[in-house]
Amino acid sequence: MVKLSFMPREEKFFDLIEAGAANAVRTAEALKDLVDDWRDVPEKVMKIADLEHAGDSVTHQIIAMLHRSFVTPFDREDIALLAHSLDDVTDFIHSAADYMVLYKVGLPGPRVRVLADIIVAATKEMAIAAPKLRKTATMKKVLENCIEINRLENLADQEYRAALVELFEEHEMADVIKWREIYEAMESATDRCEDVANVFEGVALKNA
Amino acid sequence: MVKLSFMPREEKFFDLIEAGAANAVRTAEALKDLVDDWRDVPEKVMKIADLEHAGDSVTHQIIAMLHRSFVTPFDREDIALLAHSLDDVTDFIHSAADYMVLYKVGLPGPRVRVLADIIVAATKEMAIAAPKLRKTATMKKVLENCIEINRLENLADQEYRAALVELFEEHEMADVIKWREIYEAMESATDRCEDVANVFEGVALKNA
Amino acid sequence: MVKLSFMPREEKFFDLIEAGAANAVRTAEALKDLVDDWRDVPEKVMKIADLEHAGDSVTHQIIAMLHRSFVTPFDREDIALLAHSLDDVTDFIHSAADYMVLYKVGLPGPRVRVLADIIVAATKEMAIAAPKLRKTATMKKVLENCIEINRLENLADQEYRAALVELFEEHEMADVIKWREIYEAMESATDRCEDVANVFEGVALKNA
Repeated sequence: MVKLSFMPREEKFFDLIEAGAANAVRTAEALKDLVDDWRDVPEKVMKIADLEHAGDSVTHQIIAMLHRSFVTPFDREDIALLAHSLDDVTDFIHSAADYMVLYKVGLPGPRVRVLADIIVAATKEMAIAAPKLRKTATMKKVLENCIEINRLENLADQEYRAALVELFEEHEMADVIKWREIYEAMESATDRCEDVANVFEGVALKNA
Repeated sequence: MVKLSFMPREEKFFDLIEAGAANAVRTAEALKDLVDDWRDVPEKVMKIADLEHAGDSVTHQIIAMLHRSFVTPFDREDIALLAHSLDDVTDFIHSAADYMVLYKVGLPGPRVRVLADIIVAATKEMAIAAPKLRKTATMKKVLENCIEINRLENLADQEYRAALVELFEEHEMADVIKWREIYEAMESATDRCEDVANVFEGVALKNA
Repeated sequence: MVKLSFMPREEKFFDLIEAGAANAVRTAEALKDLVDDWRDVPEKVMKIADLEHAGDSVTHQIIAMLHRSFVTPFDREDIALLAHSLDDVTDFIHSAADYMVLYKVGLPGPRVRVLADIIVAATKEMAIAAPKLRKTATMKKVLENCIEINRLENLADQEYRAALVELFEEHEMADVIKWREIYEAMESATDRCEDVANVFEGVALKNA
């Protein structure tokens, strides 16, 4: 089943998960800066690409360590899912930013900025929740962050749908297609935050 | 490995799985009523949203129970996948209905009604199959329903592709994009029914 | 945990995995032939559909065997994921070819041919890697192929994004939507090759 010990090897898993969550926050904040202050766009997107690569390497470290470890702080599948979900969060943030450059879109509208705010908030909740998994005493408190991440994901979904409706009403077809792809990537980023939250929740329920 | 006992706790898993399947049938029938009788659209979509929330709560009950149980009627991953797939079925049905309102589309065409019929049929097969998992004697019979669900999913896929071709031939671009999204959600609902069927099949193969 | 023995039953798993990989290569080469030599299109797409069905049956054989076996050459989840990823590779190749016919698109451009080349290369790497899993001595060598598949997947992703940009610049909206769907399916085929590579890598890391 599941055990929580404090062997250095196991502590390293927590270090990496927290590093991945912290990197997701930085990536989200870089996206927010991009859409709030629409200048030096290529440079800012380049920075987001670098943060995404940093996230990739954290994920690979977690997976490699998982394959080499016989004892893990919680279920192997949960750790693997966590590693890949954290990776997906930054991937989708990067895709959204990347499409803005590729499609040469103009100044992002309010919906995009709201979605960026939600992504930042969701990643921050993940980063707050992660360290609580280290100790049984704090583990239960993870559930509050999970509830908040679920709320944020629903909010992002509503923004996404409202944004699609506006697109069809106010834009020409090419912009509809381009922006829909960007909105989709942003909404997907919050979905992946929810995947992370679901693993956190499961670990807490199983161990707290 | 896998065991089938009849402790009350384990019976409860079957109760919840059957409740989820029954709710999926009701959601599918509400979609069929919406597209067959295109009146009181907002009210009917509201009803579908309520059914989707009912499905969410069943899923959460299954997952929470899974995290709390040491003995389960079949593999934990299978139960989790089942819970999430059942949830996805109603989510995609709701998305399809929701987009019809958001995009202010007109009267649904014959392809939409055929897809709704297929979704109803597939969910009904799931609801017929679920109780057969309770007893080893009836378990093998699940395979017939799985084969039928696979057949229905292929049918939906063909309808979807045929519908896309018509869209490009007969509609203006905005409608193409809007309806494609609706068709996609409907086709995805049948994919998720197949996911459920795959778990049923696996359980039957492992235990019958 | 994991064991590698050489009981006939276990050898059969490797036989099926290698058969699935070989079938993926044939399917990829059929797509390449279609886009390189744009003649007898319906016949060539029919051939790709047949290859996809052959892949389905390999996947079903693996899953059925998995459900019946108590001893497997490596983790059950890895074998199931492998079976489904191999299946997805040929599914996406078939979808891409199928849309070309359904949408009555014209002569494929250079980007499509490059993507087809990448898909062929990625499937060939899988086919080269698969037999190396049979023996601990050769297992480590799998990692080279995994690295190459990852490189090819990144290449496909870059081609895909560049192709999208061109689409918006050079085509009318209907073609944008049609070709984007085709490009997407082709890019997804390489993603699934990467899923296969990830399983190979995991097996090697755990056993070599």
